[in-house]
Amino acid sequence: MTIEVGDNSIFIGNKPFMNYVTSVVMQFTTKEASEVIVKARGKFISRAVDVSEVAVKRFLQDRIDVKSIQIGSEGFENDDGKNIRVSTIEIVLVKRTEI
Amino acid sequence: MTIEVGDNSIFIGNKPFMNYVTSVVMQFTTKEASEVIVKARGKFISRAVDVSEVAVKRFLQDRIDVKSIQIGSEGFENDDGKNIRVSTIEIVLVKRTEI
Repeated sequence: MTIEVGDNSIFIGNKPFMNYVTSVVMQFTTKEASEVIVKARGKFISRAVDVSEVAVKRFLQDRIDVKSIQIGSEGFENDDGKNIRVSTIEIVLVKRTEI
Repeated sequence: MTIEVGDNSIFIGNKPFMNYVTSVVMQFTTKEASEVIVKARGKFISRAVDVSEVAVKRFLQDRIDVKSIQIGSEGFENDDGKNIRVSTIEIVLVKRTEI
């Protein structure tokens, strides 16, 4: 299982769904991250929301929360030299502070 | 053009993309709404982000902003009686206050 992970960011693509969920869970548990950012572009945005929801509501219930969500756009030139715009999302998950 | 609109909420589905953008723009202009909520479930979440980005960055540039974004889950029983979970998003767009 190799998925892109950088400085607590997880980039959602077309690998098996549970790879991403496991990766989020491991960042918070094994790697003791206090914050994990789930990032995606284009059609993978829906999947980023799914991954976040499953992590927050099922696997790390009562242990992490959605801290903030940002959407944006990126422009790039495709192979035909045409300018393409793609939407992006960044979902910041945060460990709950112990009371 | 008939798309679902209720109390300033626009539900994103599989109608032509520009119908939704036009609907957002009309809510803010013709109908003078101060806030519009772009809602979607499942695979349409990516599209809701696209609609919001195009409205904010292109059609109503400098006139509206993303105020807040919420994600969630809904459970329902499918035709086979199986429990299904689907992610949801609500993107709140807000008119800029005049200075």
